Formats: sequence, C-alpha cells, structure tokens
Amino acid sequence: MRNYKLTIEYDGTNFSGWQRLPGNKQTIQGTLETTISEILGYEATINGSGRTDAGVHAMAQVANVHTSGKLDEEIFRDELNNKLPNEIQVTQVELVKNSFHSRYDAKGKTYIYTIDTSDKASVFNRRSSYNYVGRLEIEKMKEAVKYLIGSHDFTSFSDNKDHTNNTRTIYGINIEQNRNLITIIYQGNGFLNHMVRIITGTLIEIGAGKKDPGDMEKILKSRMRNQAGVIAPAKGLALKEVKY
Amino acid sequence: MRNYKLTIEYDGTNFSGWQRLPGNKQTIQGTLETTISEILGYEATINGSGRTDAGVHAMAQVANVHTSGKLDEEIFRDELNNKLPNEIQVTQVELVKNSFHSRYDAKGKTYIYTIDTSDKASVFNRRSSYNYVGRLEIEKMKEAVKYLIGSHDFTSFSDNKDHTNNTRTIYGINIEQNRNLITIIYQGNGFLNHMVRIITGTLIEIGAGKKDPGDMEKILKSRMRNQAGVIAPAKGLALKEVKY
Repeated sequence: MRNYKLTIEYDGTNFSGWQRLPGNKQTIQGTLETTISEILGYEATINGSGRTDAGVHAMAQVANVHTSGKLDEEIFRDELNNKLPNEIQVTQVELVKNSFHSRYDAKGKTYIYTIDTSDKASVFNRRSSYNYVGRLEIEKMKEAVKYLIGSHDFTSFSDNKDHTNNTRTIYGINIEQNRNLITIIYQGNGFLNHMVRIITGTLIEIGAGKKDPGDMEKILKSRMRNQAGVIAPAKGLALKEVKY
Repeated sequence: MRNYKLTIEYDGTNFSGWQRLPGNKQTIQGTLETTISEILGYEATINGSGRTDAGVHAMAQVANVHTSGKLDEEIFRDELNNKLPNEIQVTQVELVKNSFHSRYDAKGKTYIYTIDTSDKASVFNRRSSYNYVGRLEIEKMKEAVKYLIGSHDFTSFSDNKDHTNNTRTIYGINIEQNRNLITIIYQGNGFLNHMVRIITGTLIEIGAGKKDPGDMEKILKSRMRNQAGVIAPAKGLALKEVKY
C-alpha cells in the first residue's frame, strides 16, 4: 500500500462544495474520487484536509489517497488533470508516509476572502470575489480584527451544531486594499464551520459603519451566533494553504 | 448632439477581437454597438482607442459615442451592463467635449502581458495568461528591454502591412515575478500591430536562453520582422489603460 498527498486547486463556482454527496450533486471530492478510481481501476476514497462550502474555491486544498501499489507521481498527476474538468486541477502529487492524514496532521490553514467594492465586479474576478457595493473603512476593520487574534472560543462566529470544542487559534488576519479590491487573509490552526465567512460578514458591517470595531470583542465574548454579522457569500472565499 | 466617453472592461476569450466584422463573428465593438443602438433607439457607431486582437482582454479600453441628445451617465452605464454579455462591462460613462476622439486624442497606452510558468496554468487565470512551461531568466529579460526604451522604429516587432511610420516611444517596460507568474507591463505613446506580443515572444526566447539579451538591440536595428521572436499568444495580453 502507498499513500499519496494531493494538492488541489479548484474554482468552486459550479460545485456543491468539497464533500461527496449522494445523488447527482457535483462535488469536488466526488469528482476527484470518480476520476482517481477510473485511473486506478478500483474504488478509491480520499481524505480532505477539511470541507469547503458550496461555491468556495481553493488554491491549495490538500487530500490524501491510499493506493494498492506505487505510482509515478508526475504521471499520476498528469493523468488526473487530463480527465478532471477544467475547474479542478491537481497541482502536486507526493508520496508520503502511510500514516499521513490530510485532516488530522494539518497544523494550520490560510484562507483568503476577496471583496470587490466596485459598482459592478470586474469581469476577471466576478467568480472569485464578493461584490459589495459601498464604501468600507479599512482602518476600522483592521482595528476590529485585533480582538480575534489568539486562542478564543469562536462559538459566536460558527454554525457548528455540536458545541464540543469551539476554541481555535488565529495567528493573524491581514487586510489589504488595492483600489476597489479588499483582501482579508486569515491564518489559524483551524476554523469552525462558516467561521471565516461569518467573521468576514461582521467585518463588512464594521467597515460600513453599522457596527463599531469594539463590538467585535463583545460579539466574541457573548458566544452567541446571533450577535455576529450576516455570513458573507461563499464565492469570495478561497482556501489558500494547508500547513503540515 | 452629445459625446460620451466609455471605459470598457472585457474578457476577450470568446471574441474575434475589438473591430466590428461583417457576418456572424462576435466582436467587442460589434456587441457594444448593437447594445447601444438598442438602448438609444437609433443606429450608433463607436470609436475605439485602438483595435485589440482576437482573444486579447482589456481592463480599461476607451471608446466614444455620439448621441442625438443628453443621457444620464449612470443610467446609460447600468442599462448597457444589464444588456451586455457577462464578458463585457462598461465601468464608466462620461460626458466629454464633442471634439473628443478616443483614438486621435490618446496620449499613451499601458498593456500588461501575463505568463504562467506552472506545469499547468492555474484554474483562476487560465483564460488571461499564457502558460509557458519552463524556466525563464527574468534578469536576462530585464536586461533586454533596456534597448527598447525611448523612440525607435519598431518595424522588427510589427506585422504592419504599410510601413508609413513605425516609430513609437516606449516609456517603460516593467517585468515582475511572483512565484510562477510573470507580468510584463508596457507603457508607451502607442504600439504597432502585434508589437506587444512580438516583443513578449522575443523576451520569452531571451528568458529561455535561446537568444541573448544583446540580441534585442540587433533585432531592433535590423528593422526586419523575421529577426524577432515568435508572436506570443493573444490570451496573455490585456489593454490596461489609455491615457489622455
């Protein structure tokens, strides 16, 4: 048996998220598993580093797959890319230890959220940005994120159903602006269900003046989802990196 | 009579270039004129700042259109965007002097050429970059462009049929690299037919070691098209700005 680590890039626009679903729903995992099984000649399942929501993209999602024997990494990658739809691409295949698990071994993740504040989003990033029409005060948003850095219970910013352990560590949140494009880069040891999108939605309300930067601390401490802002659209979000 | 300046963004992938063509060929100018005529209720023609080749994109192409009367700029823009296909967007409409002509009044243009040197281009920029698989030595390319700055006869880098006046002034060529992405930004008072793409193709040959940086000067001075490199693909090129 061998274990291969796959690095995967996808435009999630037309997919019902990462996780394999029963029925006709197109998912990233399902599409990859079908393609891998075709190439290997036997049923293969993959472990993803985590689920991404319907419409969310990835520059470098990571998954691993166990195969019955040894494969040439580059040939396997090229065979995959020849068969995969245009929106999904395997950028790297790497032989790893049999014990490697893309989810359990992940040490951290980086997500990027892109907001286009033009009157109408650019034709070049319409699929991968959220078109928020209006002025956002970046300085207020930068002030607000300071309350989130470090280890906290992020229940307020999650749609997790089970409240077993909602503590996560955020290493940094960087907000950059280039004309009408605002990017928010989140780095942390892990993120709860919808957490990046709910924090982003809250930051947008702060940037728009509907909430104050200091409200971020109150929301965090309340541990109540209904205190936070509206969830930001999936299309603006991309998984940028998984660290091991 | 009024005269409106339009700033236009487009993904040229599925279009046969800017210039209106007879028959069924989809062009940017043709699509805009049809849409404008529908809105105005009478036949309208537009003047573009210059043609872009089939497959070339624009962040800010400029055109102007004469109308029989006054229009609200924002309403006109929104009506246009409601009717135009997804790949074309009017980002600005501005009332200008009746004498304004987008081509004759243009003082300079900026083009950007994007090269993705990954084994396979990213799913996010596949439509707007040229996937050159291989190593390019940026320093050699930077050395080569020095010979092109200033006013020169650029016959070697053009497919112009008439050789009336092939002198143009290049203000600057900036080459930047970010991981696998190389962007070449050209600023000049104007560019001959295919000039940016042929210079880019020549720079790629220099970066790949097939030509020396110093060859750029010899090619320029020869004033012979066959001395320069192969024309780079249209998909990597975008008109970034027109200065007035």
